Amino acid sequence: MDRRSFLKKAGLAAGATASAATLAAPAVAQGKRELKMVTTWPKNFPGLGTGAQRVADRITQASDGKLTVKLFAAGELVPPFESFDAVSSGTADMYHAAEYYWQGKHKAFNFFTAVPMGLTANELDAWINIGEGQALWDELAAKFNIKPLMAGNTGLQMGGWFNKEINSLEDLKGLKMRMPGLGGEVLRRLGATAVALPGGEIFPALQSGAIDATEWVGPWNDLAFGFYKVAKFYYYPGFHEPGSGLAVGTNKDVWDSFSKEEQEVVKSACLAENNYMYSEFNYNNGAALETLLTKHKVQLRKFSDDVFDAIAGVSEEVVREVAGTDELSKRIYDSYIKARKDIGGWGKIAEGSYLENRERVIG
Amino acid sequence: MDRRSFLKKAGLAAGATASAATLAAPAVAQGKRELKMVTTWPKNFPGLGTGAQRVADRITQASDGKLTVKLFAAGELVPPFESFDAVSSGTADMYHAAEYYWQGKHKAFNFFTAVPMGLTANELDAWINIGEGQALWDELAAKFNIKPLMAGNTGLQMGGWFNKEINSLEDLKGLKMRMPGLGGEVLRRLGATAVALPGGEIFPALQSGAIDATEWVGPWNDLAFGFYKVAKFYYYPGFHEPGSGLAVGTNKDVWDSFSKEEQEVVKSACLAENNYMYSEFNYNNGAALETLLTKHKVQLRKFSDDVFDAIAGVSEEVVREVAGTDELSKRIYDSYIKARKDIGGWGKIAEGSYLENRERVIG
Repeated sequence: MDRRSFLKKAGLAAGATASAATLAAPAVAQGKRELKMVTTWPKNFPGLGTGAQRVADRITQASDGKLTVKLFAAGELVPPFESFDAVSSGTADMYHAAEYYWQGKHKAFNFFTAVPMGLTANELDAWINIGEGQALWDELAAKFNIKPLMAGNTGLQMGGWFNKEINSLEDLKGLKMRMPGLGGEVLRRLGATAVALPGGEIFPALQSGAIDATEWVGPWNDLAFGFYKVAKFYYYPGFHEPGSGLAVGTNKDVWDSFSKEEQEVVKSACLAENNYMYSEFNYNNGAALETLLTKHKVQLRKFSDDVFDAIAGVSEEVVREVAGTDELSKRIYDSYIKARKDIGGWGKIAEGSYLENRERVIG
Repeated sequence: MDRRSFLKKAGLAAGATASAATLAAPAVAQGKRELKMVTTWPKNFPGLGTGAQRVADRITQASDGKLTVKLFAAGELVPPFESFDAVSSGTADMYHAAEYYWQGKHKAFNFFTAVPMGLTANELDAWINIGEGQALWDELAAKFNIKPLMAGNTGLQMGGWFNKEINSLEDLKGLKMRMPGLGGEVLRRLGATAVALPGGEIFPALQSGAIDATEWVGPWNDLAFGFYKVAKFYYYPGFHEPGSGLAVGTNKDVWDSFSKEEQEVVKSACLAENNYMYSEFNYNNGAALETLLTKHKVQLRKFSDDVFDAIAGVSEEVVREVAGTDELSKRIYDSYIKARKDIGGWGKIAEGSYLENRERVIG
């Protein structure tokens, strides 16, 4: 069913409800709308795929089926990276995905997932929910006929798996590492070869030596992919994705056709998942890291200050260049960087300082 | 309207819907239930009162009015601290409050708001949403005929306002400080006099010299109360409330009478607020702290390691004693402390390490 026929049927149903209202209650049942949600995740992929399913189920349940959301895993309706075009054109009604997948459409989408040395999950939420983030995002996505909402976060991603120790910048030179997007560009400027591989192709590439290193998500997801079998050193902290937001994008014509109550159902379901998924990653990453270190004898390493600082410097440069794309990118960049300073400043006084003290006292 | 008459009317309405279903759709309107939500907050109190209102509005809107939640500020229906009994007995249907207000009913309620040296907001969410937290909380609250859900968080609270510098443990001796609950008990063991004053009585007490110091929430709420006018030193980090969760408690008979869809609406609304309120505090605290420091010339001070470590040691002791209350308290304590170790361990590797590095590099 394409958008046109969907809207036509929805219109028919609404008409039927109105005219039948004085006759019988079951007419309400005919007002149920089926919405197609495409995703960029394999079916039931832990955290991301299951999170998308939860959003779909919450909308369906909370709306009592008035909005029945049917989920399609990557490739089931359209190839994963065509989700954006599918929703933009109305072939699908919604997507659950990471906005930086659409950086080919507009570079500024990066800011609504994560950028190197950028906002953490909590900071991103504060910028989107309370600061200028949502309005800027609405403006950007509207150019593509999409209404975006935040609906999940992976938290900070690990620095990655390496088959040798990284003791200096020299060790990055010539290194072949899987890292997509802006993070990959940072590595390239430091002399590494950055490649973008889909999740399923990473393990064989690492095993065969086609790549020397990879990042993926965090211990929970990385353990599932078994990278510990072919790479020994697990580095932290990641610089490239400090808190990757996941988004639900809805075709704007569909969104505008929702009643205020229906919009509220979708918003609540997305905000709820935004809380839930992040806590799921926080809970499961700790246990998975423990398993990696004790059972699989993985070597946990922290990037040296020298290495991290050099990476951070180049990251600032790469992200700043995104602001040069156009006038809207400049406004998004300026607002994002201001949020990093203001919200980050509070975080340092608050959780940052507390956790540092707690660690010292009780370990 | 008490619970009995509410249930009676709800029952009547349900009957009316059923019998009228074949006659006219408007019968659905008669199926709307009015729910009374009492709170412990003054009307529209920033963050907490407005958060409770958002939960009420989200439930009403998302359910299309089937569950219409009417909010009562502190004292409007029952005095604030009688909210628990009101919901337990069915005089009201729901409350929005902090669970540690009910520590007189059961000491273990403290764990579901915050305890000294305990979980941060993110850690609490992970324990409640994914770990054993929700099941233990359900078990505790069911003893009082209540179904609890997390619905907001203030984030880390500041150490407090002092009219003199705190350079050593000696400076705490004889100090009269407003700090309720377990945090107050910690101060007492260190020789201070801890008092519990409701929000509205703090400023005059500090101004008159009846107390020497107070904690309240964080910069955003503290600025509104004007403490900077009568106390000069603002200390961080707080030890007593590392991330105070706010809860919605629903009368369990009422909860059980909800359809699965209605329960889903309430759950989504609470989870959504859990995300939203915390980001509101994170966003507004930063700006308010800036105002306090630059416009009102407040002196920001960090507790010395010596002072903080002594406070932390006593905190551990006080919190451990709660485990001695009964068998359930012991299970809750053990699970909570394990969550602090496991989830906190990941946080240190992830956001903790990243933010430390980011701070070093870009300030």
